[in-house]
Amino acid sequence: MRYAYLGPAGTFTEAALLGVEGAREAERRPVSSVPVALAAVRAGEVDAAMVPIENSVEGGVTATLDAVATGSELRIVREALVPVSFVLVAAPGTTLADVRTVSTHSHAWAQVRGWMDGHLPGADYVPASSTAAAALSLLPGAAAEPGFEAAVCSPVVVEQHPELEVLAEDIGDNRAAVTRFVLVARPDAPLPPRTGADRTTLVIPLWEDRAGALMEILEQFATRGVNLSRIESRPTGNFLGEYFFSVDVDGHLHDARVADALMGLRRVCPSTRFLGSYPRADHKLATVARHHSDGAFREAAAWVAALQGRGAHRPGAAGAGPA
Amino acid sequence: MRYAYLGPAGTFTEAALLGVEGAREAERRPVSSVPVALAAVRAGEVDAAMVPIENSVEGGVTATLDAVATGSELRIVREALVPVSFVLVAAPGTTLADVRTVSTHSHAWAQVRGWMDGHLPGADYVPASSTAAAALSLLPGAAAEPGFEAAVCSPVVVEQHPELEVLAEDIGDNRAAVTRFVLVARPDAPLPPRTGADRTTLVIPLWEDRAGALMEILEQFATRGVNLSRIESRPTGNFLGEYFFSVDVDGHLHDARVADALMGLRRVCPSTRFLGSYPRADHKLATVARHHSDGAFREAAAWVAALQGRGAHRPGAAGAGPA
Amino acid sequence: MRYAYLGPAGTFTEAALLGVEGAREAERRPVSSVPVALAAVRAGEVDAAMVPIENSVEGGVTATLDAVATGSELRIVREALVPVSFVLVAAPGTTLADVRTVSTHSHAWAQVRGWMDGHLPGADYVPASSTAAAALSLLPGAAAEPGFEAAVCSPVVVEQHPELEVLAEDIGDNRAAVTRFVLVARPDAPLPPRTGADRTTLVIPLWEDRAGALMEILEQFATRGVNLSRIESRPTGNFLGEYFFSVDVDGHLHDARVADALMGLRRVCPSTRFLGSYPRADHKLATVARHHSDGAFREAAAWVAALQGRGAHRPGAAGAGPA
Amino acid sequence: MRYAYLGPAGTFTEAALLGVEGAREAERRPVSSVPVALAAVRAGEVDAAMVPIENSVEGGVTATLDAVATGSELRIVREALVPVSFVLVAAPGTTLADVRTVSTHSHAWAQVRGWMDGHLPGADYVPASSTAAAALSLLPGAAAEPGFEAAVCSPVVVEQHPELEVLAEDIGDNRAAVTRFVLVARPDAPLPPRTGADRTTLVIPLWEDRAGALMEILEQFATRGVNLSRIESRPTGNFLGEYFFSVDVDGHLHDARVADALMGLRRVCPSTRFLGSYPRADHKLATVARHHSDGAFREAAAWVAALQGRGAHRPGAAGAGPA
Repeated sequence: MRYAYLGPAGTFTEAALLGVEGAREAERRPVSSVPVALAAVRAGEVDAAMVPIENSVEGGVTATLDAVATGSELRIVREALVPVSFVLVAAPGTTLADVRTVSTHSHAWAQVRGWMDGHLPGADYVPASSTAAAALSLLPGAAAEPGFEAAVCSPVVVEQHPELEVLAEDIGDNRAAVTRFVLVARPDAPLPPRTGADRTTLVIPLWEDRAGALMEILEQFATRGVNLSRIESRPTGNFLGEYFFSVDVDGHLHDARVADALMGLRRVCPSTRFLGSYPRADHKLATVARHHSDGAFREAAAWVAALQGRGAHRPGAAGAGPA
Repeated sequence: MRYAYLGPAGTFTEAALLGVEGAREAERRPVSSVPVALAAVRAGEVDAAMVPIENSVEGGVTATLDAVATGSELRIVREALVPVSFVLVAAPGTTLADVRTVSTHSHAWAQVRGWMDGHLPGADYVPASSTAAAALSLLPGAAAEPGFEAAVCSPVVVEQHPELEVLAEDIGDNRAAVTRFVLVARPDAPLPPRTGADRTTLVIPLWEDRAGALMEILEQFATRGVNLSRIESRPTGNFLGEYFFSVDVDGHLHDARVADALMGLRRVCPSTRFLGSYPRADHKLATVARHHSDGAFREAAAWVAALQGRGAHRPGAAGAGPA
Repeated sequence: MRYAYLGPAGTFTEAALLGVEGAREAERRPVSSVPVALAAVRAGEVDAAMVPIENSVEGGVTATLDAVATGSELRIVREALVPVSFVLVAAPGTTLADVRTVSTHSHAWAQVRGWMDGHLPGADYVPASSTAAAALSLLPGAAAEPGFEAAVCSPVVVEQHPELEVLAEDIGDNRAAVTRFVLVARPDAPLPPRTGADRTTLVIPLWEDRAGALMEILEQFATRGVNLSRIESRPTGNFLGEYFFSVDVDGHLHDARVADALMGLRRVCPSTRFLGSYPRADHKLATVARHHSDGAFREAAAWVAALQGRGAHRPGAAGAGPA
Repeated sequence: MRYAYLGPAGTFTEAALLGVEGAREAERRPVSSVPVALAAVRAGEVDAAMVPIENSVEGGVTATLDAVATGSELRIVREALVPVSFVLVAAPGTTLADVRTVSTHSHAWAQVRGWMDGHLPGADYVPASSTAAAALSLLPGAAAEPGFEAAVCSPVVVEQHPELEVLAEDIGDNRAAVTRFVLVARPDAPLPPRTGADRTTLVIPLWEDRAGALMEILEQFATRGVNLSRIESRPTGNFLGEYFFSVDVDGHLHDARVADALMGLRRVCPSTRFLGSYPRADHKLATVARHHSDGAFREAAAWVAALQGRGAHRPGAAGAGPA
């Protein structure tokens, strides 16, 4: 297997990839951006790419949401949750008192502002293209003068580069912060089997009249008892006020209630895109009311088929009427 | 063919039955009540029964609504609309000035009150078990003294008994009044073929919390674009506030949107009863939005089947995503 | 006080009226029909009329539902529940074996059919304008030969006329049967005070497209947590498929959630008619979620008023935003 | 008046601010981030701050959405739309062939990727904290060696610094791109008067069970005919799957339908936050159905008040019932 991931080595994304069985032994290609990673999947250069999709502090990763929503189809085949923990690193011999300027990715900066205000209130900020890139440029022998004395990065970078000086650990403002990653493959990848604790990801364009149209979409889920665990709006980029929705629902394409909701969605919104069904990383089982169970769908289909003369009449299949 | 109908001969119900091709030559059995007519169908003594179900002035015929909702299953296979027109008849030689007391069925009486207030303001009313029965007891040679001088009945009675004196014609308060009849057979009767202008009749029990539960039922129709042309609540007879709904929807069991709505209903309300799909007497075609058409349901099912690996991938079957 | 009621004396309706404090001493005028009773109220000839509105077996009393829905406005100021119990009576000296023909009101006949099939299987039925009228014509010295040997009526008739022979008691098929009556006054009658266990009755015309329009009406209740305890459709009489709905909701005009729902209804359906708020006969308290309570409505109105600069800013009135 | 804006001078944000009457003569303070700008408003150091809220390509500006949603209350008092147009600039004497590395803000970079792929396919990218900052570091005499040969910025920068070499103009991939800015003040700022073409911005926390809760929120708008022109979900930052929604609706706090929807929202979601009503920059008038008009709300309130005995009975105020 060959994997791409949002690099460089040492990012939280690599940590997520290393959790996939066999990934440690597989080819792992760090790339510079989410679109590049997904382009490598589409071109067949790698089998799958690990990319971040959602962060509990910063929200959806828009580059990922947009890249999977357009272009040739892709399939999410796995998700991973990685706790977000930040360390402040510097070149060997540096102390906290030496730090005037700090660099990191802007998302990471947003998550350590509280610590910075408390411990380095006067520090300037220099944006970097990734947390790891900022840290690596502090290594002895790095190409150029970095223009900053410290960097905020993942502990993984320190594991790989123990020569870095760790000035402070666990400096994130929110200790429960977590990033969710997805492993994205081509649409001919095998559909992961149903486990009972599954998630299905969809892209649903929204057309004019927002309140009514969005309600019509949500009704497709609500009338089948399909719960939404994530909903995010994204601009299509065409003009202000034109959106698509990126949603996760509880359940699997092979759950009757999910399949039925997809049929309803497909009718009212023909360009709905299916991005995959896959096991939840937290193994949380879906709760399903009896009348939304596979059995209830099967029984209802058999009843209608019998009425239409397509199936065998079975005892109890006929409507009892009011008792 | 053998038919039962709500008698005696000369009622509007017989008029409705005579409109069925072949009925003039068939055995026609007048019976004393709707339950008796339907019992004859259930027992196999007749092949079908013509009974009134709805009147544009008086509303639903509760005896019919209740009799088809409970007991062994039945199927409506045809409907008929009969304009309601009333005449005032008397024994030969009677004049309007002779009339002190008038008899007819209470439903008919309600529909001629305006005329009576204008032309016979002091007349007393005597209830009768049917419009025809009242009229026939005025015929020369009738068994007993009737206790009234005039009767309100259908013009059909006069056609069959020209010796009756017609004191006034077309005395109904609402000239557009019409009664709808249904021809009821056993559930093994062939399902009438789809014409594009069809009606489907259902019985739907309603359980606790009315506003929410009724909305859940209506949503099953609304989300599939199935229009309701009639909805009536009836008590189950068990206790105050326990209802079932008798509804007509536009469309046929073989329309995908109707079949899909029935599956949804069956899940949320397992004792829903199907009472038949049959051509509308007014031949009014149903209007169906593109996304509720058979083609849209077929395409959506094929899309989901392809995603599930159950069908062939077809060009255009995949979700396009936001353009 | 002067009261009208659906007579003659001895009906269940008089029993309901006698339950009103002061009614035993008041003038009580039996009249021949519900429209006549309500006409007497409208004309100011009586102060109020007691009429049946709903029966647990037979359903809505259509004469009442229609008479209060049209014409000049009326107000329901009280309700009463009367258990329905039937006795079979005859002229003195008659025995069950003598009975060939039985008379009663058609609604009562429907409720004793099971007993009749078991005890008098061959008996003929003669309709009567009321249960009491049938019974009274069996009294010694009644004007004419009745044409039947027995009558089905309320036990009240026997109390008032002990000379009647009681052939059987408690012959109703459904022992839990109950009829609900309402006391109807003119719209200037004082609004009964709120008790916490109140009912509000409304008439709501329904316009074209039934599923959607009915849902829009129900939403007005559902979004304010107002429960429906009765909903009945009635034809307007104009043409098939044109309805109005007669509904009861839990709560009082002075409950904020009810008043707010009425405002919403009035906008989407301007000819909605208010028929009164009055205490429930069963004293069942309404269950109201915190966010539908009077306090929640008051707080929300104060918040908006403060935003608009119409009210005082109060501590905690401002939106806290996501915590 | 004193204004803060997302600086430095020369950004699209300053262009938006310069469109406010009087702003050219007012004190204009460029600040380094949206949170800093809003903190200056909250602290009373400036009267208002101009910040970007939405971009037709990149979507919501999360820093702004989050900063106005929490902390002490703020009010949006004006919006501005600025077409997004990009130029590629360099130090004097530079040519396109000299460019190896390009710097700009990451949002701007995302919007010129197509042009770069076509004209500078091998160029490296260096992130900058703003488009203007990147450009200004190319000016002769800038503090340090910039580490890149060209920058992507707004044409405003070139107006202010004509010595910059313009290598290419109008290089944005989407010529219709536009950014929406809002002018944010303290909550005691006067509410802008209603114009008929207004927008209202709200923050609505979403609690458990997404599909149902989101539908309950949307219903508050839909049942009053209030259209949503923008809806965005944002994480609260507490844990994955906990959101708030940032929405814009058509209409003004002084429109009855908007005020009524706010009351409904406040009840079902007490921590809803009102962020202001202000004229739309595009002057597009709201379309309002008759039954959602101020007149309809006024009439409905008067009707209920009259029923409650709080207002004068007026001709036509009473429900007409079914005609």
